[in-house]
Amino acid sequence: MSDNRFVPTYSRMIHARELIAGKVHRTPVMTCGYVDRITGGTCCFKLENFQKTGSFKARGAAYAVGSLSEAEAARGSATHSSGNHAQALAYASAVRGIPAHIVMPENASRVKIDAVKGYGGVISFCGPTLADREAELSRVISRTGAAFIHPYDDGRIIAAQGSCAAEFLEQTEHLDMVIAPVGGGGLLSGTSLWAYYQGGETAVFGAEPAGADDARRSFVSGALAGNIRPDTIADGLRTQLSELTFSVIRRYAADIVLVTDEQIAEAMRLIWERMKVVIEPSAAVPVAAVLSGSIPCRNKRIGIILSGGNVDVSALPWSGG
Amino acid sequence: MSDNRFVPTYSRMIHARELIAGKVHRTPVMTCGYVDRITGGTCCFKLENFQKTGSFKARGAAYAVGSLSEAEAARGSATHSSGNHAQALAYASAVRGIPAHIVMPENASRVKIDAVKGYGGVISFCGPTLADREAELSRVISRTGAAFIHPYDDGRIIAAQGSCAAEFLEQTEHLDMVIAPVGGGGLLSGTSLWAYYQGGETAVFGAEPAGADDARRSFVSGALAGNIRPDTIADGLRTQLSELTFSVIRRYAADIVLVTDEQIAEAMRLIWERMKVVIEPSAAVPVAAVLSGSIPCRNKRIGIILSGGNVDVSALPWSGG
Repeated sequence: MSDNRFVPTYSRMIHARELIAGKVHRTPVMTCGYVDRITGGTCCFKLENFQKTGSFKARGAAYAVGSLSEAEAARGSATHSSGNHAQALAYASAVRGIPAHIVMPENASRVKIDAVKGYGGVISFCGPTLADREAELSRVISRTGAAFIHPYDDGRIIAAQGSCAAEFLEQTEHLDMVIAPVGGGGLLSGTSLWAYYQGGETAVFGAEPAGADDARRSFVSGALAGNIRPDTIADGLRTQLSELTFSVIRRYAADIVLVTDEQIAEAMRLIWERMKVVIEPSAAVPVAAVLSGSIPCRNKRIGIILSGGNVDVSALPWSGG
Repeated sequence: MSDNRFVPTYSRMIHARELIAGKVHRTPVMTCGYVDRITGGTCCFKLENFQKTGSFKARGAAYAVGSLSEAEAARGSATHSSGNHAQALAYASAVRGIPAHIVMPENASRVKIDAVKGYGGVISFCGPTLADREAELSRVISRTGAAFIHPYDDGRIIAAQGSCAAEFLEQTEHLDMVIAPVGGGGLLSGTSLWAYYQGGETAVFGAEPAGADDARRSFVSGALAGNIRPDTIADGLRTQLSELTFSVIRRYAADIVLVTDEQIAEAMRLIWERMKVVIEPSAAVPVAAVLSGSIPCRNKRIGIILSGGNVDVSALPWSGG
């Protein structure tokens, strides 16, 4: 469906960063003494929950939409997603002044539907299966001629997601490692590539929910594997690697570690209570990796990407009282 | 009980700011396009939820403890509180390397007890009434000779709480007004005084829960009134003005407006969901004042102090689902 499945070069990543400047935030970096005392390392947090649309996805969408030709742009953008990419594409398209056609399942939550509408997205509803979504997306594209923008199986997206790591390495002293959550692998690919192009002094780890562990299994076996039935509270990470993102991660990521939903919920709560910032479950996955000891941190300088903060605050993964 | 009930001069406020530098954070200022669209103004938020110990109270405590003589300091500090002042005093005392004696009711929440212990506070438990607390505090002070530090009825505290406004006015372009929550009145007094000493170009408003409206009633009638039975989710604002804070607020604050608990909960949720920061109900009170239209904001530049972020995230003022 896409001609954009390429591994971005360094100059492409620079171009992405330049093109999205002013359209997305240079998000702040914070530290947390409490986490440092637990881990024995120095943890720096990159707050992509403060990013436009509430997640790092705004970066990729801003670049993919921004780099459409005038003729392509005139026909709008399109994707199927009920998550952060949908909001990001709606936002980025609004910035360029073009329509964003978003295919969403009828059973998507009101919160997510309202968010996409809030950014001006044009929603087409479909049935609950992946086949339903793809069929509806094909119809939308046939009708409108809109440019399909995949959430991660796209070199433009990967190039721009790397801008987060680019800022992070500038905003901090030397980092021994950076940890990113991994779902479809766009953020982890962009982060790994940027660190590699910078000379490889910063190791890049992926952190993944045990209930959607395709990236870990693929990384270990060397062959791309899927998720049969993903089961995790980290709703942004239920997707799976593509051939493109796997090829990048396999080569440039240091390792992928797993954490349980219980560890994710605990890490999420700790960040809310201690750092006073709202992060979504997916963003808590790398935090869980350091708190659980899955990635040894003692005397290391660790960068953690808090990837997003879009969460329904009336349905939290811990009990009341 | 205290000899420290004075109205701080400008030079005292400067001294407070200098003495606490390095011991407390210069907290960031953020904006929120969504709030601006609702209010028609430009709202700047001062994030005291990111302050040391999670609230602005660290400022006052750091100055009061920091300005004790060596002889006084050697005997430690003391207060009765189950809230943010307790944590702040424990923290500030730990920074100076002296004991903090905190009198807390036996029925205080585990979260609050653990927080004070986490900062090294020495807790003395007492019965649930104010008389119980005061009796226990007297015993602790008789035994230890510790210096009593009141949460707001103290010129040192007022002087240092004003450092928040001092930073705020430096970090922003001209503000037409600043809004602070009001409970005992320490923050509102310090904010009002600082704005007055700067020339009075910024009007300072207090925002208060309707269920603990002693400041509003006192301000309107001109005579200090108490709260008979405070009833509000804003647990940090159930206290009442003292003669000292009333005398400052009466003279230097522009007005005090009331908001309902429903408006407070709605404002709190909006800040969590839109700004991705965790604030406590008390901090949402000034936000509720602008969202409800109690303070007209159209075409104005408004500073809002988000006073703290210490909240039990498993007991939130909105329903699940």
